[in-house]
Amino acid sequence: MIILGIDPGVATIGFGVIKAQRGKNTLIQYGVITTPPGIPLSSRLLQISNDMEELIHTFHPDEMAVEELFFSKNITTGIAVAHGRGVILLAAEKLGVPIFEYTPMQVKQAVAGYGGADKRQVMLMTQRLLNMKQIPRPDDAADALALAICHGRSATSLLNTERVFDPKKYDTR
Amino acid sequence: MIILGIDPGVATIGFGVIKAQRGKNTLIQYGVITTPPGIPLSSRLLQISNDMEELIHTFHPDEMAVEELFFSKNITTGIAVAHGRGVILLAAEKLGVPIFEYTPMQVKQAVAGYGGADKRQVMLMTQRLLNMKQIPRPDDAADALALAICHGRSATSLLNTERVFDPKKYDTR
Repeated sequence: MIILGIDPGVATIGFGVIKAQRGKNTLIQYGVITTPPGIPLSSRLLQISNDMEELIHTFHPDEMAVEELFFSKNITTGIAVAHGRGVILLAAEKLGVPIFEYTPMQVKQAVAGYGGADKRQVMLMTQRLLNMKQIPRPDDAADALALAICHGRSATSLLNTERVFDPKKYDTR
Repeated sequence: MIILGIDPGVATIGFGVIKAQRGKNTLIQYGVITTPPGIPLSSRLLQISNDMEELIHTFHPDEMAVEELFFSKNITTGIAVAHGRGVILLAAEKLGVPIFEYTPMQVKQAVAGYGGADKRQVMLMTQRLLNMKQIPRPDDAADALALAICHGRSATSLLNTERVFDPKKYDTR
């Protein structure tokens, strides 16, 4: 199954494409979509929409994993990100890609083995699970890959339940 | 000039179409786009996108006026509305309709003559300025018409500046 992970935003949208099969993940591609500041929000949204559609047409993901939004900190940023997220969800829906949403805690749990894992632990596990030589950069792309891995574990659990509920298997300690 | 006013949302999106010419407004159409609860957000966003594109293809607006978002009250609602608003801005951008944004206070100022006007005063002035027999319903459609009127006053001010800065002209008191 090809999974497209997306870390939503307006200025920078992380994406990560993996192939997930029964607990084994293979990296296909990762990177970021960026839009320039100083142009109207609607122009940035159109760029995001076009780039998302291109990503989907290029990699033909079977499913998409997107981060849920939480805004305890900065409401203004949150509102902007939600604009971008709406356009991202629309692109997937339009092109028939099923969408799955995960909280940051669910991602940490699935990738690093426990919800309280810090950012670096999640990145190290992402690198390890995808057999990468270095930690994926930039952060938004790493987050997107972690989302894709997280969904891979949930999605393939239908076939392979026991691995999904064994977080210690992937514990770095 | 044909103006499309939009009160953004996810469950209910108000729209109002007017013709604005040198301070005179003519009602063309108004109503709401609604999406059902209980279906995924992405499906609702696709409906909004399709309906927005249909609105634009039907009425060929020269410009669109959309309410800016402020969320002192309910962040969760705000996040949902921002998803819808992103899709709305995208539809206009895609189809080449210039977008203008107004705060609720700017709308009150333009329509009722002062930023502290209450909802009912704005609605009554909207009714009056558009020669309607009754106050437009539902509220979201009335808000969208007020936005269109507000933009009409700003937009036509390039031709007709003195009227725009004479709020007393439209004061109901």
